[in-house]
Amino acid sequence: MKRYNIGLIGFGCVGQGFYEVLKANPSIPAQITKIVVKDASKERAVDRNLLSFNIDELINDPAIDMVVELIDDVDVAYDILKKSLSLHKPVVTANKKMVAENLSELISLQTLYKTPILYEGAVCGSIPIIQTIDRYYQSENITSISGIFNGSTNYILTKILEQNLTYDEALQEAQENGFAESDPILDVGGFDPKFKLSILVRHAFGHWVHPDQILHWGINKLQNQDFDFAKANGLKIKLVAKADYKNGSLSLTVAPHFVNAQDPLFYIDNENNVVIIDGEFVGRQTLAGKGAGSHPTGLAVLSDVKAIIYGTAYHYKIPLEFIIPDSVIDVYVRYDATTDFVVELFESISEKYVGKQSSYVLGSIKLNQLKSILNIDNVNAIVMTQEKKELQTTKLTYSYAS
Amino acid sequence: MKRYNIGLIGFGCVGQGFYEVLKANPSIPAQITKIVVKDASKERAVDRNLLSFNIDELINDPAIDMVVELIDDVDVAYDILKKSLSLHKPVVTANKKMVAENLSELISLQTLYKTPILYEGAVCGSIPIIQTIDRYYQSENITSISGIFNGSTNYILTKILEQNLTYDEALQEAQENGFAESDPILDVGGFDPKFKLSILVRHAFGHWVHPDQILHWGINKLQNQDFDFAKANGLKIKLVAKADYKNGSLSLTVAPHFVNAQDPLFYIDNENNVVIIDGEFVGRQTLAGKGAGSHPTGLAVLSDVKAIIYGTAYHYKIPLEFIIPDSVIDVYVRYDATTDFVVELFESISEKYVGKQSSYVLGSIKLNQLKSILNIDNVNAIVMTQEKKELQTTKLTYSYAS
Repeated sequence: MKRYNIGLIGFGCVGQGFYEVLKANPSIPAQITKIVVKDASKERAVDRNLLSFNIDELINDPAIDMVVELIDDVDVAYDILKKSLSLHKPVVTANKKMVAENLSELISLQTLYKTPILYEGAVCGSIPIIQTIDRYYQSENITSISGIFNGSTNYILTKILEQNLTYDEALQEAQENGFAESDPILDVGGFDPKFKLSILVRHAFGHWVHPDQILHWGINKLQNQDFDFAKANGLKIKLVAKADYKNGSLSLTVAPHFVNAQDPLFYIDNENNVVIIDGEFVGRQTLAGKGAGSHPTGLAVLSDVKAIIYGTAYHYKIPLEFIIPDSVIDVYVRYDATTDFVVELFESISEKYVGKQSSYVLGSIKLNQLKSILNIDNVNAIVMTQEKKELQTTKLTYSYAS
Repeated sequence: MKRYNIGLIGFGCVGQGFYEVLKANPSIPAQITKIVVKDASKERAVDRNLLSFNIDELINDPAIDMVVELIDDVDVAYDILKKSLSLHKPVVTANKKMVAENLSELISLQTLYKTPILYEGAVCGSIPIIQTIDRYYQSENITSISGIFNGSTNYILTKILEQNLTYDEALQEAQENGFAESDPILDVGGFDPKFKLSILVRHAFGHWVHPDQILHWGINKLQNQDFDFAKANGLKIKLVAKADYKNGSLSLTVAPHFVNAQDPLFYIDNENNVVIIDGEFVGRQTLAGKGAGSHPTGLAVLSDVKAIIYGTAYHYKIPLEFIIPDSVIDVYVRYDATTDFVVELFESISEKYVGKQSSYVLGSIKLNQLKSILNIDNVNAIVMTQEKKELQTTKLTYSYAS
């Protein structure tokens, strides 16, 4: 079997994890022969002879057969990808933003140059979800994909709800453990799971949705009273990504949700992720595992390297068209007196509390109405709830300390 | 792309499921051109021109490119496999017993004839566990594989514990729903999960263990008082298959377990299965889905057919040797007065109850000691428990009605 020379670009948390898991597997016919890093002065636990500082030199090096790109910068990553493919060098990347925003073109480039790009490490860390959908569920009528797609926010939410850390303490812990993006707003603002949802939707439903088209908000506006509200009702808050298909309509959201103990998401804590697939033939499939971290994501990257050695490329579904509908969803919205007009936007209200400093309303609202209040400063928190019938049985009757 | 002509042998529950999911996927370049069935007189929802009654004729038919074998008989299935491979026709099978008992030879035959055998449908229905281990965890130091591998018994246990059905009613329901083997002892006696464990162990640890070498017992000796005992302590009973690796020792068991609400197995009910993989790099991965049924298993078979079209074969680990140790395990054993010698076999005892009709003991016992009492008639039930420290916290202090 041919041995592959890998050019690695980026040696951060995932890059090092990949380096270590490859080293632990000497039977794989591949070795890293060059690593491009930004900072020449930084001490690193690798042979200095491997290090290089010029991306183009690495890509153009005829000794390099495969490019593994593990950097943050989207534009540079896209440039690496195009240049490598044009030289017929397969690319492995974990850059979810780059993949999500350019997926339609990425598919064309792969066809044009007959050279694969694989990106298992871009979605949900250690969970082999793209390969699983690609090889297993292309023959399935998938009706829904949902789950917890961001390890960092799930870690933060767990620490706040279960260990009473403050938001800032929890965020710092997540960063120290290597679970967080360099720019935390990508995680806590709900951007990161949107990129992943966009990628999974292309594979599962054959429809590319630019991440900008997905309605999302994050956990960064949640405050103590929202967590207290959850606790008082036996609920947890989880950042949930969701794609629901029905009759040609594809409803897509990334948002914090209240989940109760009957929901499988309730039990997915810390940096763990879960993907739940519902299909007509298969019923419900659940895949859970570590969604972030150096070794788990490094192993996902390694699985792509092996897949390229085995001659694998993704089998993309033929593009299909879907309508993205204006669904009615159930939410909890906390607001202050200056924004009490939000109440009028609701289709129906099941509970309302008005307080001196802060008020909240529980009810049903159209997605497009909700969109109009997402970025208003004094709307302090919005959390999606279970379906109404469940809400009623969980009796959300928390009284504010006044 | 070449179109494949499939010869299907067997048209029972899984065979029909496979037929229907293939029919629902006209874009897959494969069609069933012949179906061998046993009973010529039975009415079937297929074109009668497809039907045939001669297995050899089907295998030898030069128009057939691929053989899908979905029958119960192990010897006939093995014969089909050998003949097909010798003609370089790839085989897809869901016959777990045949695969488990002959896996070492199956690997040799694949190498000899350079022709693949795939058997995703043989293990845990809809869960793509073999492909996932094969493609994803070959680069991982797996420390443990465990889970619920039998849909039929899990369905029965759920119905008894949650809907108060009797054992016989629950078994009948499982059979009516197509979850049970034609011979129920394969399920309820714990044989079926043993076959699956044997197959997974070869893929995960590179070591073939003949299923006869795996210590197992089933749920068929459990009676009302055992279920009452579980309920009174907030526990469920699950039939658990488990492979634990430590320092060159591989401990293997299939046995009913008490599981508490902290255990992820607690939430896997009805015909659902789950496989939990623990690895050094990846941490814990959980895959759950329907473990039985016509369409879920039919989809697994279809995934193998597609994998063959894509040129896939399994990448078996190089054979490794392991010791199968004589571990100490914690069990609950219910027995009657004629067999109270069992108590002396324990290393230590944490609780004992002696009653007129029936007694029980909770404690630690060596596997080899346990083996000696497995088939004694008046030992009425043996259930493995959580680790001792958990047992103490769950306070197993149920008192018999006397």
